[in-house]
Order: sequence, then C-alpha cells, then structure tokens
Amino acid sequence: MKTVKPMEYDLMLDERRSEIEGIMRRFMPEEEGETATVKEAMNYSFSSGSKRIRSMLMLETYRLFGGTDMELIGPFMAAIEMIHTYSLVHDDLPCMDNDDYRRGKKTAHVVYGEAMALLSGDALLNYAFETAIGACKAAEGKSADASEALTAYRRIMRALGILAEKAGINGMIGGQVMDMETDESNISLDRLNTMYNLKTGALIEASMMVGAILAGAVDEDIERIRTISADIGLAFQIRDDILDVTGSTQELGKPAHSDEKNRKITYAALLGVDKAGEEVDKLSRRAVREYEEFAYNNDFLKELILRLISRKK
Amino acid sequence: MKTVKPMEYDLMLDERRSEIEGIMRRFMPEEEGETATVKEAMNYSFSSGSKRIRSMLMLETYRLFGGTDMELIGPFMAAIEMIHTYSLVHDDLPCMDNDDYRRGKKTAHVVYGEAMALLSGDALLNYAFETAIGACKAAEGKSADASEALTAYRRIMRALGILAEKAGINGMIGGQVMDMETDESNISLDRLNTMYNLKTGALIEASMMVGAILAGAVDEDIERIRTISADIGLAFQIRDDILDVTGSTQELGKPAHSDEKNRKITYAALLGVDKAGEEVDKLSRRAVREYEEFAYNNDFLKELILRLISRKK
Repeated sequence: MKTVKPMEYDLMLDERRSEIEGIMRRFMPEEEGETATVKEAMNYSFSSGSKRIRSMLMLETYRLFGGTDMELIGPFMAAIEMIHTYSLVHDDLPCMDNDDYRRGKKTAHVVYGEAMALLSGDALLNYAFETAIGACKAAEGKSADASEALTAYRRIMRALGILAEKAGINGMIGGQVMDMETDESNISLDRLNTMYNLKTGALIEASMMVGAILAGAVDEDIERIRTISADIGLAFQIRDDILDVTGSTQELGKPAHSDEKNRKITYAALLGVDKAGEEVDKLSRRAVREYEEFAYNNDFLKELILRLISRKK
Repeated sequence: MKTVKPMEYDLMLDERRSEIEGIMRRFMPEEEGETATVKEAMNYSFSSGSKRIRSMLMLETYRLFGGTDMELIGPFMAAIEMIHTYSLVHDDLPCMDNDDYRRGKKTAHVVYGEAMALLSGDALLNYAFETAIGACKAAEGKSADASEALTAYRRIMRALGILAEKAGINGMIGGQVMDMETDESNISLDRLNTMYNLKTGALIEASMMVGAILAGAVDEDIERIRTISADIGLAFQIRDDILDVTGSTQELGKPAHSDEKNRKITYAALLGVDKAGEEVDKLSRRAVREYEEFAYNNDFLKELILRLISRKK
C-alpha cells in the first residue's frame, strides 16, 4: 500500500480543511431576523477553531467507497460537526463542567449567558437533523428514474438512523451520563471501555459509517468500517488521557493535568501511561490491519487515521 | 356537518387518550443498562400527565385524510411529544424559568439534579428524531413494489423536514429566544404574534402537517392544514394568557396570575382580556371555516379544535 509523504500530507490536510470550512459555512444559519441572537451564538461555537476531524473522516470514508456527490455528503458533514459542537456547549455549562474557555476562546455561556447558551446548544442539535434531512433534496434532484431515487432515499434514511443512534442515549449522550456517574466505587476497565466507546467512539463511528453508507458500500464493508472506527475512537480518547499527563499546557492549547486535578478516572490513571500507550498501539495496529482488508484505498484517510492516534496534541 | 354530542365526545376523548398513552409507552426507552438513569429521567418527564394534544391532533389529522397505518404515524406521534417534553424540561431549568413544579409534579432537575435534567432534555430531543426516523421501517416492510416504497420514503422525509423545521430556530426554539428577548422596549402586537406563532404555533403546525403529509394529502390540503393549525396555535396561546388572568390556581392546576407576577408581556396584558377574547373568537371562527372547506371530515377532530380554543383550563 502506498503511503503519503509527511509534507504531502500536510499540504493535503490544509487543502481539505479549507474545503471543509467552506462546506461548514454553507450550512451555518444566516444571522438575521427576530432570532438573530441564537443564530449568532450557534455560529460562535460552531466556528470556534474545531479541527473538523469527524467531518473529515466522513468525507474521506465517503471517497474511499467512491462517493463524489458533495450535495449528498455535505449536509451530513455539517450535521456531525453541529452535534459535536452542541455537546461541547452543553458540557461547558455551569451545571456540567463549568468551563469558561475552550480552544482559547470564551465559552458560549460566558459570552451569551447561560439561557442563550443552553438554547443555542438545543438549536445546534435540532439544526443538525434539519440539515442532514435536507440531504434528500440532493437525492431527489438527481435521480431521474424511480429505482435510483429509492436507493438514494434508503441510504439517506439509514445514514440518518445511524447519526441519531450514535448521538443519543445508546451513543454519545449515554457516554456522558456514564462519565457523570463514574467514580471510585464503580470503576473498572470494562466500564471505562464502554464509556469511551460511547462518549468519544460513537460519533467517530457515525462519521465513518455515514460516509460508507452514503457512498453505497456493501454491508460487509460498513461493518468493517464500524469496527475500525470504534478502535480509532477508543484509541483517540486514550491518547487524550495520555497527553493530559505527558503534555504541557502550551503544547495542548488547553490546561494539562486537568484530569488529575479534577480527580477524573482515566485510562492513564487506571493503567499507567505506559500500559495505556501499549493499548493505543494495539488498537492502532488492529485498525490499520482491518483497513487493509478493503478492496479500496484512500491514502489520505489511512494517514489521517494513523496521525489521529499518534498525535502529540 | 355533523357535530359530536358532549357526552359522546368525552367518551371518545378518553378512548383516544388511552390509545395514545399505549403508543407513547411503546416508544419510551427501556430503563436498563449502564445509562438507566438518563432513561428514567426521560420517562419521568415524558409521562408527567401531559394532555397529549399535539399527538392527538397529529393522529386525527392523519385520520381525516384517510391514514390508517399506526406503524407509520406512531413514531411521529411519540416524536412530537418528546420534543414538547424536552422543551419543558429545559424551560424549567434554573438558568431559564427556574420552576420546581410542573403539572403538580417536581420538575426533572429537582428530582435528578441539573446536569442529568439537561442531558435528559438533550436525550429526548435526540430520541425524538431517532424514533421518527424509525418510521421508515414501517414503510419498507409494507411496500412490495418500488413506486409504493418511494412514495412512502418521500412522505417520511417531508414529514421529518417539517418536524425539524418547526422545532428549530425558525420554529419553537426561535419563539423561546424571542420570548427571552421581549421586554417593554421592543414589544408590539406584531412581535407578540410572531413570537406566539413560533413558540406555540410551530409544534401545533408540525403536528397537523405531519399527519396530513403521512396520510398522503395533496399540497393544497397540506397548505390549508398549515393555516388552520397556525390559527389554532395562536388562539391556544392567547387562551392560555386569558386563563392565567381569569382562572384560579385550583382550576388551572398551576399557579394563576403567574404572568403578571413575572411581569410577562402577554396578549391579555397588551390588549386586555376582552379584546384578547375577541381575537380568540376570530381565529377560532376562521379555523373552523377553513376546516369546512375540506372534502373530508373527522367529527372528533373538529370538536377537538373547538374545545382546545374554548377550554377553561
């Protein structure tokens, strides 16, 4: 399998980032009318320096399986980032983590007040579905014959189902609830695995599965994408734990050692940094091995996966 | 046009309420697994003595246009009530209205704490879409031929679009934002009309429009349903204002005169109770006149509309 050279990858990454930001801008609400404030608050959080990892994984998985229709994948890319953003806005609220800063910017409730931040989070979640549902326009416009249209609708409905499931009580929200309820009395490696799978893994799974589904991948490939993305999600979160211990505040762009300070039970705390690192390596190797089973390839996606897991910040 | 006799209507209402509660129960999440608490919190609020007006309007409008498939309409009925419920859970939070009681029961944040109440609201909104998207299973299972399946998918996607739009920034959430930002400096009858249309009207519109769309009503009929439901929603909210002034706490089952106490600017406060009452009558007459233009009839729905507007509590 070909690999992408470091410099080449960085160029491709920049290119893709600006492509994705362009797509995000298309789907952001116009700040106009009687309800301009909430739209402003939505856009404030939505454009707060995210790395757009989820939408990038979605787009590249879509391309891996030959997807080319930006009118179809674009709304789902925006939707997954909106869901990720709303979860951060609500997470930062005083009744949750009470964080005043995120990615170096004041959080929504500091700027707009708690009530407006709450509503802007609700609005982002709702708008995510509104936007993704809008993908059916693309399907309808393109398909001259009924069986093509039917195929498109089926894929969109299936993608919507995955998006909703992975964001909900059996996905991300479930993980947040487990996080809230985890303490020294009930912690175990099993529990931590389930919690990470839900809290972080679920949206990564949704990203890649939606990409595969919309591109028309066969069930076997969609299932393989699911196991790969679950490994990536888990490795990604354990890497986060490790960086919190080993990184500096400057490197991370957010306070280091915050887990220890908040007495958070993490993989690194439970197993130690070395063992946690071994786990990341294991997951990473497994994900790549599975990826190489595909009859398709997307060099950029493969490199993206490797870098996400081995990232230093 | 036939009318329903009072006693007959009450019997029919009871019958329909228990039918609807049965449907709601089918779609409530099982309180099991690692995330049982949030499911319990969702169900606590979801089964807190709602009158299920929105799902009832949806079902009866569906029946007005000949709809009979409960596997198709059921998920959407549950979804609209979940959306209504989440909006109340978030509305009651300390950073919003800070209400400790609703319908005589402690609010979610009093019972489960603020963080869990917030997450349970998010979960209800997400689960509403998860549930409604699940309606496609019904469509798929039933339609042997492709063109029937395509028609079903188109209706479901259109209904999902209306649901998301009317619940979002250009619907209910938009109305909540306007409510928050309305004070003596910017109040006008125009602003109040827009605010009521969004805050209360939008979900009533969604209820009836989704019923019509899923039953396969023609565009002209869907549009007529939209204007009727907008009138009903506005009349319903103005009636609420009037009852707050004229009703007793005992009659209402919630504190009377709360608008005045909270210095809320309402229709009744702006126009006086009598003029507000005239407005309700006008809207009511217009809604019924429009309703009578249909080539179809559903006696129960007509009576339901009249009673909603003239209700005493």
